[in-house]
Amino acid sequence: MKERIERDSLGDVAVREDRIWGAQTQRSLENFPIGDQRMPLEVIGALAEIKHAAATVNEELSGLDPKVAEAIRQAATEVVAGRWDDHFPLKVFQTGSGTQTNMNVNEVLAYRARELHPDGAMVHPNDDVNRCQSSNDSFPTAMHVAAVKATKRHLLPELEALAQALLEKARAFAEVVKIGRTHCQDATPLTVGQEFGGYQRQVEAGVGRVMQAMEGLYFLAQGGTAVGTGLNAPVGFAERMAEELARRSGEPFRTAPDKFEALAAHDAVVFFSGALKTVAGSLFKIANDLRLLASGPRSGFGELRLPANEPGSSIMPGKVNPTQCEALTQVCLRVMGNDATITMAGSQGQFELNTYKPLMIACLLESIRLLGDGVASFRVRCVEGIELNRDRIDDLVERSLMLVTALSPEIGYDRAAAIAKAAHAHGTTLREEALAAGISEDVFDRRVRPERMVGPMEL
Amino acid sequence: MKERIERDSLGDVAVREDRIWGAQTQRSLENFPIGDQRMPLEVIGALAEIKHAAATVNEELSGLDPKVAEAIRQAATEVVAGRWDDHFPLKVFQTGSGTQTNMNVNEVLAYRARELHPDGAMVHPNDDVNRCQSSNDSFPTAMHVAAVKATKRHLLPELEALAQALLEKARAFAEVVKIGRTHCQDATPLTVGQEFGGYQRQVEAGVGRVMQAMEGLYFLAQGGTAVGTGLNAPVGFAERMAEELARRSGEPFRTAPDKFEALAAHDAVVFFSGALKTVAGSLFKIANDLRLLASGPRSGFGELRLPANEPGSSIMPGKVNPTQCEALTQVCLRVMGNDATITMAGSQGQFELNTYKPLMIACLLESIRLLGDGVASFRVRCVEGIELNRDRIDDLVERSLMLVTALSPEIGYDRAAAIAKAAHAHGTTLREEALAAGISEDVFDRRVRPERMVGPMEL
Amino acid sequence: MKERIERDSLGDVAVREDRIWGAQTQRSLENFPIGDQRMPLEVIGALAEIKHAAATVNEELSGLDPKVAEAIRQAATEVVAGRWDDHFPLKVFQTGSGTQTNMNVNEVLAYRARELHPDGAMVHPNDDVNRCQSSNDSFPTAMHVAAVKATKRHLLPELEALAQALLEKARAFAEVVKIGRTHCQDATPLTVGQEFGGYQRQVEAGVGRVMQAMEGLYFLAQGGTAVGTGLNAPVGFAERMAEELARRSGEPFRTAPDKFEALAAHDAVVFFSGALKTVAGSLFKIANDLRLLASGPRSGFGELRLPANEPGSSIMPGKVNPTQCEALTQVCLRVMGNDATITMAGSQGQFELNTYKPLMIACLLESIRLLGDGVASFRVRCVEGIELNRDRIDDLVERSLMLVTALSPEIGYDRAAAIAKAAHAHGTTLREEALAAGISEDVFDRRVRPERMVGPMEL
Amino acid sequence: MKERIERDSLGDVAVREDRIWGAQTQRSLENFPIGDQRMPLEVIGALAEIKHAAATVNEELSGLDPKVAEAIRQAATEVVAGRWDDHFPLKVFQTGSGTQTNMNVNEVLAYRARELHPDGAMVHPNDDVNRCQSSNDSFPTAMHVAAVKATKRHLLPELEALAQALLEKARAFAEVVKIGRTHCQDATPLTVGQEFGGYQRQVEAGVGRVMQAMEGLYFLAQGGTAVGTGLNAPVGFAERMAEELARRSGEPFRTAPDKFEALAAHDAVVFFSGALKTVAGSLFKIANDLRLLASGPRSGFGELRLPANEPGSSIMPGKVNPTQCEALTQVCLRVMGNDATITMAGSQGQFELNTYKPLMIACLLESIRLLGDGVASFRVRCVEGIELNRDRIDDLVERSLMLVTALSPEIGYDRAAAIAKAAHAHGTTLREEALAAGISEDVFDRRVRPERMVGPMEL
Repeated sequence: MKERIERDSLGDVAVREDRIWGAQTQRSLENFPIGDQRMPLEVIGALAEIKHAAATVNEELSGLDPKVAEAIRQAATEVVAGRWDDHFPLKVFQTGSGTQTNMNVNEVLAYRARELHPDGAMVHPNDDVNRCQSSNDSFPTAMHVAAVKATKRHLLPELEALAQALLEKARAFAEVVKIGRTHCQDATPLTVGQEFGGYQRQVEAGVGRVMQAMEGLYFLAQGGTAVGTGLNAPVGFAERMAEELARRSGEPFRTAPDKFEALAAHDAVVFFSGALKTVAGSLFKIANDLRLLASGPRSGFGELRLPANEPGSSIMPGKVNPTQCEALTQVCLRVMGNDATITMAGSQGQFELNTYKPLMIACLLESIRLLGDGVASFRVRCVEGIELNRDRIDDLVERSLMLVTALSPEIGYDRAAAIAKAAHAHGTTLREEALAAGISEDVFDRRVRPERMVGPMEL
Repeated sequence: MKERIERDSLGDVAVREDRIWGAQTQRSLENFPIGDQRMPLEVIGALAEIKHAAATVNEELSGLDPKVAEAIRQAATEVVAGRWDDHFPLKVFQTGSGTQTNMNVNEVLAYRARELHPDGAMVHPNDDVNRCQSSNDSFPTAMHVAAVKATKRHLLPELEALAQALLEKARAFAEVVKIGRTHCQDATPLTVGQEFGGYQRQVEAGVGRVMQAMEGLYFLAQGGTAVGTGLNAPVGFAERMAEELARRSGEPFRTAPDKFEALAAHDAVVFFSGALKTVAGSLFKIANDLRLLASGPRSGFGELRLPANEPGSSIMPGKVNPTQCEALTQVCLRVMGNDATITMAGSQGQFELNTYKPLMIACLLESIRLLGDGVASFRVRCVEGIELNRDRIDDLVERSLMLVTALSPEIGYDRAAAIAKAAHAHGTTLREEALAAGISEDVFDRRVRPERMVGPMEL
Repeated sequence: MKERIERDSLGDVAVREDRIWGAQTQRSLENFPIGDQRMPLEVIGALAEIKHAAATVNEELSGLDPKVAEAIRQAATEVVAGRWDDHFPLKVFQTGSGTQTNMNVNEVLAYRARELHPDGAMVHPNDDVNRCQSSNDSFPTAMHVAAVKATKRHLLPELEALAQALLEKARAFAEVVKIGRTHCQDATPLTVGQEFGGYQRQVEAGVGRVMQAMEGLYFLAQGGTAVGTGLNAPVGFAERMAEELARRSGEPFRTAPDKFEALAAHDAVVFFSGALKTVAGSLFKIANDLRLLASGPRSGFGELRLPANEPGSSIMPGKVNPTQCEALTQVCLRVMGNDATITMAGSQGQFELNTYKPLMIACLLESIRLLGDGVASFRVRCVEGIELNRDRIDDLVERSLMLVTALSPEIGYDRAAAIAKAAHAHGTTLREEALAAGISEDVFDRRVRPERMVGPMEL
Repeated sequence: MKERIERDSLGDVAVREDRIWGAQTQRSLENFPIGDQRMPLEVIGALAEIKHAAATVNEELSGLDPKVAEAIRQAATEVVAGRWDDHFPLKVFQTGSGTQTNMNVNEVLAYRARELHPDGAMVHPNDDVNRCQSSNDSFPTAMHVAAVKATKRHLLPELEALAQALLEKARAFAEVVKIGRTHCQDATPLTVGQEFGGYQRQVEAGVGRVMQAMEGLYFLAQGGTAVGTGLNAPVGFAERMAEELARRSGEPFRTAPDKFEALAAHDAVVFFSGALKTVAGSLFKIANDLRLLASGPRSGFGELRLPANEPGSSIMPGKVNPTQCEALTQVCLRVMGNDATITMAGSQGQFELNTYKPLMIACLLESIRLLGDGVASFRVRCVEGIELNRDRIDDLVERSLMLVTALSPEIGYDRAAAIAKAAHAHGTTLREEALAAGISEDVFDRRVRPERMVGPMEL
């Protein structure tokens, strides 16, 4: 591979000819051979958006040459469109400020802008592209922009679609009375629709929490420059940058009220991750319930049938497994682990900077992506195809002992308990034991009607 | 100790004469000798509030005898006031629905209500005190009520007081220019006031997050009874209970829109814990910064002096340590660990019930209490007494190499870097090297003025 | 309450007359009103053991007056015996070195030793009781001593007893063939004994892991004094202290090979906590399985019957719940949360000291205690009383479709799969479908015999 | 892209012509579009090793045709060598047993074995390649084999190299006396060599812990087949497989003593992850110390100089940051988050199977890889290049107040404290205040000699 020489403040570096990054990118590539996870392209795209906005604002406020500004904007547009994806090779595990990725973007844009410049004028990665910016404010701005975008484009729509699918199931199963289970033990009845309605509510509330927590991500660090003071940026730069980013994205980005906090802490990210792990917990519960309710086909709870998407076993022929539930619950635990990482990382800022930025955003974007993908797959390949085993469901309701609860307001807790225990001990029905205990047929039949036990008493 | 015989649906149990609990409490006491952490009294108090409200609502809606209702209310008022604290001996690690603590409250209130009843009429723990309720809806209602109360009474005021104390320091130190540090390395200057302002913003935003997340706690499970259907409770019971609890507490409690979700999941608690751990992360950062900035007295950063509250060392005479920072950071890590527990527990509901309720609320209340106490102590014994080492602060600014950043817009990043490197290598001042590099005195003195480097450039 | 005046290097402090602690204890009591968790008495006891040993070693090596030494030993013996428990009031959340608790022990012993001294001679908390020691080495030594003792006395015996109880069940159920379940779906059969044998193996391996990880706790920091160098302690002090502590406890304590590591890091504690959380994970799985296998009585898996220890529901009469499983799984999640706290705390040492010592040991001892208690209760009140529902178990085996697996070596995976699918679709038996598919009766009856499907094929 | 039709028990599927996987792989590829993380190639390689061994053992014990066996072995050898890496496209987030990856390997090997078979005979993925195996035993076997290999090849050598590098620094700096710091406050002196020796001990002990915990990974599940019973495998298969895998790898693999435990739980993985997170905690402490000790160049602790590997700031010219410390501490937090995920996942087995296998091994291998890479980079680019700022170090020792500790055995704690406080208050030297307090020059000069304060007193 042919190489060219690039230069930075530490000296010369060789870069392969077919890549347009510069010296600092090359150094980082060599200095951080750690894992194989590259900085997510969402972060690159968000940084390019920032550079685009900065070119505009610098043209207005700090005297950036209009032709240079336009060239930077064109280059940034190409990066956002994905044209230069192979030119952002840096790893997540690098300097904790994301400086090297910021410089990677600066270098690629500078190189490309020079090519696009009508006169081929030199464009400097620091003095022009990074003008009035620091990695310390640009990178956290990119974190917020990237997280908002991924959440709005992918996660929220998928959560809403899942909530809708659950709602449809809840409606379809609204009339089917089934046995409830508390402590994994038979309890009083409810409808399958009510059960799915509970799931739907969890997901819907999750959407609300994600949106609530996302509000903190609308505040942008840009304009704080090196330590939060805004040194070397003109008055108004911060506000104009937020406006420009808001205008182009359609999201209500605002400049952060305190730039010192915005560089040194990422509490908004920690809180947002807290919303994601709450959603993960909801989804875990739902997926785990479905796999248990579908357990069988002959030796489990057996109330539901999940779609059979693939052969289940390499050794047991004909087996079908709740694989979408398994994939989703694995996603959920990953998200919870990511939350643990993000929480610790968020607490470890020192003085004017938190240096766990790349880790935090990589974990956060992974959580967003995995939840979105996992939920989509779970909806399409599991939830939407769920069917009921009506015979099984009906049979279980009929045999349940906990219907005795309905007698309790009439005959008292203690007598009702004695009837249930007798039926359990003798293997008899509640009815048999109730009559034996002197309850009249009339009272029993009026009270113990599962289909009327699925709501409060009419007064 | 003399004993009396109590009875429940499993048979007879002996209870010591000086305790007014009943058979189920006694069984639980014997069946769960696990650890020594008792169910928090906040939960007992909240359950008593619920029983108080239920007596009223049952009088209205389900025909509870008015004298019995009044006796229950009187008994509940006594429990809330702490008169019977010794009669709630059960442990946190018990049945996962909190049933035994609910029954403990039912039994104590029934016993006491009978004593208070003008005719000494029998009051039944289940049929009267627990009327139209289940542990499955009462206990999660108590979780929310207890958590809201502890947060409003203790945590939020303490966080606000800390924010205020930090704000006062920020104002007091508003004019003191100091060296900034990013990556723990010298960076461009800021004021001490700006630094403390960043801390204040973290705490203030934390208050906002706690309040946001607390909204979910206003929704109450009460009325769902055994599985969420509301079986055995009259129509309207749920709504009236929420009204009654809201009325007496002054908090905007509302009935949960979906009781199935409210029994089987505690996502609101998980999300709320996520807000607490975010606050913990903020406080960790602040406390850790303060201890580093106060490191010394002669061999550390040495910019701050923390109050000397106690001798610091059992072997090194005269040593003073940042002990309040240490106590608070330990609190923070406990809160993060509690969040991990709560997150896992929240995901483990099965079917119509989550059976990790006592664990979840015990962890949550511990986090609330520890944060409140830790913050209060940290404010009074550390933050409010912070003083500056002006000599040290001034000296460090003067010697800093990163003031070179201010030259960058005038001479470019590359020349500025060369000057800083030369000064570092030669142990000289920036000024010396700048002049040697051909920068005019005028330019240098106009640009490199720390007190003008703490904000954006005036246009 | 009458008070007396105590004094330390910061000045005078009033102490209530009926307490024998000194000035530093009193200051700490006032300075850290955080939570209500007191420093565990196991730590106090271990520190008293250290002071006992130090009196002996100082008599030998550093000229401590023999009468003073003897008085300190007597006082320490009283503390270990619990006589002065009310005189150790300090909280967990205090200075991160545990200095204040070390001084509490020094002060109480000094006070009491003076009383015990034949001549009533002054005994100094620092110069005599703490002689040649620092909190920085004494406290981590106490952490190890306390953790080893609690593990050996409580946790390991309880784990071993549980393993034994599971083994007995495995033997009792050795011949009972049941349906296996993978992915919660019916799979090939095994015996109940094999299933319980797997549980037993988990617990037994857990014992091994705890013992492995405990090895690191045998290394003691004592002798490192303030920063690890051993300043002010005589050569040989470290070794003699470890010998003395080993001799009196019967545990193979040794002096740590590197005292700098022993003060600044608590990796041995972190690793040990990792063993505890592994055990917690094992127990979670076992308890969760048991509750699912006992689900019912009529609408669940229903293979096991757990003991009915208490009424299960405040609203559903006659309900019996797997409460011991619930208590134990809650314990497990607490232990995992404690592990998260300990892990973070262990990473946060700075320079020559980790200042999260009280938090780490409090969490560790809590985990040890809760696991020991939880396991004991679970064994006695759940495992030992487990019975089988033979009818149910036999019935499920008979109806299972996964017995088809046994045909696979003879007719191939694909044909076997087709038979299972047909039986599932038609609601028929495997036998019917196999014969319809042309398998001879002879082959079917030779192969498909559950009782011969619970082990590898004899060659 | 041209396609061909493949078939499994659910029917026909189209596969692109240039890929040699089969129907089940294709289904999984379509059914689990979740994230972009592919199943690690280490797992693929380990499964191929298992298939290689199985071909041999099946030839011996279950009548597998020798030519087929040989063809499978050849194909497996090619897979291990990486020739077919593009043919293993499945994601981590798939079925929780790893069945689909096991089938992917079975299908690729069957396809390729047919090509390699001298007669082109049909080789069946299940009946031949997967013969006597199930995903349920093969996949956990692959988990252990892959984890052991990665640990032995990569992680342990890198940890040992780091320990060695730290040891060399400890030796090089053995004579340099520096000020110690406890609670971030000046304490008594030690040598830089002692400080680095403590780091070395942490890493060395970490090696020991990893090796201890790895013992559990030597036990292999293979031979348990579907549920642990070994159904369809011949007696002796489990033992021979372990022997064969041990023979070829040189690692002491053994058959697991209980296959039910080995399928349903992955406690060995959880415990091993506990060792990794302990190492992560050690590394975090070391890296954080180094970055603090190197803080400056002019306004920090400033005792160390780390190598300058790249320009540090996009806005502050000449800045050099501790980027390797930042990359490594980020790695550490990722490893801790992975441990949280693995811990939860390990607890979630149900009945005869844990269905979080792909997640667990992906997280574990990521932790191993990241720790190995991170440590290597940290050693080469940071530790090995560390230099001391002797002037700064010497200066700080000289000015320290905590040298007063050495007077304590001679004049008592209280007088020594008074001297230190006076010097601090007056800004004077200890010597001045000691003489003023009546200590003789002789005593002072004999006791207060930093170079003699770095070890215990000679008797």
